[in-house]
Amino acid sequence: MACDLCTLLAASDDPSIIWRDDALAIVAVDEPGYPGFTRVVWNDHVKEMTDLQPADRERVMRAVWAVEVALRDVLAPHKVNVASFGNMTPHVHWHVIPRHADDAHFPNPTWGARQRDASPAAIAVRTALLPELHAAITERMNESD
Amino acid sequence: MACDLCTLLAASDDPSIIWRDDALAIVAVDEPGYPGFTRVVWNDHVKEMTDLQPADRERVMRAVWAVEVALRDVLAPHKVNVASFGNMTPHVHWHVIPRHADDAHFPNPTWGARQRDASPAAIAVRTALLPELHAAITERMNESD
Repeated sequence: MACDLCTLLAASDDPSIIWRDDALAIVAVDEPGYPGFTRVVWNDHVKEMTDLQPADRERVMRAVWAVEVALRDVLAPHKVNVASFGNMTPHVHWHVIPRHADDAHFPNPTWGARQRDASPAAIAVRTALLPELHAAITERMNESD
Repeated sequence: MACDLCTLLAASDDPSIIWRDDALAIVAVDEPGYPGFTRVVWNDHVKEMTDLQPADRERVMRAVWAVEVALRDVLAPHKVNVASFGNMTPHVHWHVIPRHADDAHFPNPTWGARQRDASPAAIAVRTALLPELHAAITERMNESD
């Protein structure tokens, strides 16, 4: 069965790819109500983080922290959530999610029970900041190269 | 308001603490249906991973990977899930969760919609391996010191 992430990364010009190098890609996720939801995806189809060598694990996590810092700088979320499951797509990837106290699931994980409808106005304000977020992610990743 | 994790760590002899040092603790979580569910908890009450210095973030993640390897060695899960939310307890901690294709939520995250009742026999087999798991975690953490 084709892997969705392998397929995404094979599309060299996919507009959701914010930044990439020879090891990993940083991808903007179109998750309704969650502008700024970002994934860090390892290029190779590897199942578990501990299938990677320690230096490669650190490379992945440095990218996750670069995204977290950019999210905090630009969106000022109440909390940042970070998770790697891979139950359905066993290809190393991390979800980095800015959480706001008024979002649809807070304080649950975004995979948990919905708590409310988020304000369209709040979402619009955050969506307007996405170009700035993506520029901040790109700047941080280029610095750390 | 008191922090549950600060309270736990202040109890020096809490039996759920598998291993600890001057930076972090590794804690067995009593989550029904999920024997081997483990947390890595930073000692200090710090909200976000990126509030820690990079060397401390790496220290946390090395402990997470030590737990992941021990889980894989002893429980042979179908997948390992790793997540750090902190929405309700904003004190850096990681959930490291062995996932089996027959567990109650697979392939959803454990925070997602329940899919089935897990087999009590399968859970009993995994529960019987917990002493071995905790020994494996302790050995790996002592090696990496």
